[in-house]
Amino acid sequence: METIVIVGVGLIGGSFALALRHAGFSGKIIGVSSPRTTDEALRLGVIDQTLSLEQAVPRATLVYLAHPISRILEILPSLDPLLRPGTLLTDAGSTKSVIVRRAAQTIHQAQFLGGHPMAGKETRGVAAAEPGLFHGRNYFLTPLDPSHLETPAARFFLNCIRNIGAIPRIVSPEKHDRLVAFVSHLPQLISTALAACLAEHPEVEDFPIAAGPGLLDSTRLAMSPYEIWSDILSTNVDQIATALTSFVDKLNAFRASLSSTSVETQFQLAARFSKSLRQDSP
Amino acid sequence: METIVIVGVGLIGGSFALALRHAGFSGKIIGVSSPRTTDEALRLGVIDQTLSLEQAVPRATLVYLAHPISRILEILPSLDPLLRPGTLLTDAGSTKSVIVRRAAQTIHQAQFLGGHPMAGKETRGVAAAEPGLFHGRNYFLTPLDPSHLETPAARFFLNCIRNIGAIPRIVSPEKHDRLVAFVSHLPQLISTALAACLAEHPEVEDFPIAAGPGLLDSTRLAMSPYEIWSDILSTNVDQIATALTSFVDKLNAFRASLSSTSVETQFQLAARFSKSLRQDSP
Repeated sequence: METIVIVGVGLIGGSFALALRHAGFSGKIIGVSSPRTTDEALRLGVIDQTLSLEQAVPRATLVYLAHPISRILEILPSLDPLLRPGTLLTDAGSTKSVIVRRAAQTIHQAQFLGGHPMAGKETRGVAAAEPGLFHGRNYFLTPLDPSHLETPAARFFLNCIRNIGAIPRIVSPEKHDRLVAFVSHLPQLISTALAACLAEHPEVEDFPIAAGPGLLDSTRLAMSPYEIWSDILSTNVDQIATALTSFVDKLNAFRASLSSTSVETQFQLAARFSKSLRQDSP
Repeated sequence: METIVIVGVGLIGGSFALALRHAGFSGKIIGVSSPRTTDEALRLGVIDQTLSLEQAVPRATLVYLAHPISRILEILPSLDPLLRPGTLLTDAGSTKSVIVRRAAQTIHQAQFLGGHPMAGKETRGVAAAEPGLFHGRNYFLTPLDPSHLETPAARFFLNCIRNIGAIPRIVSPEKHDRLVAFVSHLPQLISTALAACLAEHPEVEDFPIAAGPGLLDSTRLAMSPYEIWSDILSTNVDQIATALTSFVDKLNAFRASLSSTSVETQFQLAARFSKSLRQDSP
């Protein structure tokens, strides 16, 4: 019987457990988290059992690290002596290069495979977990070598991903980080910069009553807490800098030719792309 | 009895008419537009009557220009000979300096008062008009001198604005254009630039399946048609350039210190501002 150990039973870890159950997984799901969280997870039926890290990890077919990035980096060295051969260790951190590199240095007893489910919502914590969170979402896997996906434990994990309705996407850690720098980290920084820019603009003070829907859309990401972003920004500095440069170049080009036909072409390209995003989305 | 002449019976002009009726306006509402539009407006009960510009304007207490900016600029000179003293001519264009300047040069027979209701929605045309469109929204008025608001016709128009539930905001044309450059034109260009930047990024091609809600929010404005924005951009070049510079400076500062505490402070400022926008909104 397979045993899945979820380390960090919050929104992502809890939703992964619920999704597996929903998909008919009949093995055991053990949660490792603070007592308050595991009590709630047990009460909500998200996990079957709670154990200490030391007790849980040696029993695992799959260890699923759903902590924030900095905690994953901290915990990796202490996991190695607990792992048994044949176990797959994976994580759900939002950046991959730093984690994969650290795992390569510290995990020797079992296989590590980096992952990143592109799923989430505004509310955090196990109470917000839901079985459909991953449905139709990309699930990035970042093996250092494609053969790493062929082990029994990796095949089991790939099946889990497919069974919960997510779409496995195989990319290198570097390519993953470049991609999310553009499609996730850049939009976040843009929204934060816009809101900060407006907050500091003296004339906007009189204004905020009745912001239109466009301004509300543009500043929604800016409400994200820094605690989530701190780790992401500090572990993807170079790729984010590249994305920012590319975006700033675009804005500078707009500024240089505001009423030119080149801006018209850009509006058309942008509208086409934005519509295609919506056709492709679930 | 008051007579209101709406020139350009689309979403804004039509909604202004419907809102007035809803608020108990008992005078006459005459529409000037293409035959197809006025037929529809009559059928929908948006206007009482349709006449040519030459027939309608001399009868008006208030002439409400709800055309796009470039059409307003074109039509102003031909309106002057039709206006009678005591009439108020106003417009609903999204930028004000150029229009107000052109009106000062061309309108001599009656009073001109620039206006801009901060209301709209994705669908255009009279069929999309609704009486509640202005409710709770800012309605900018840009007199060249505060005394211009004290004439009987201006007082009548101010009452109309209040009666339809909008909030009159008195600012100079320049201040208006500076403000909307930041809160409206900048968010539009950011969204367009982001979508164009992603569309041109080779690695995003594999990706667009399952864009997250953050990316969807960030690219919603990018679907706006260029036809609406062409006039706005070309009549507010300097203020938009200033807003772009201020925003680009902010992004460059982020890039220079991605994992510093100054970015943390900016996240907190941005989150506070974005939440306050939501508290103030209707």
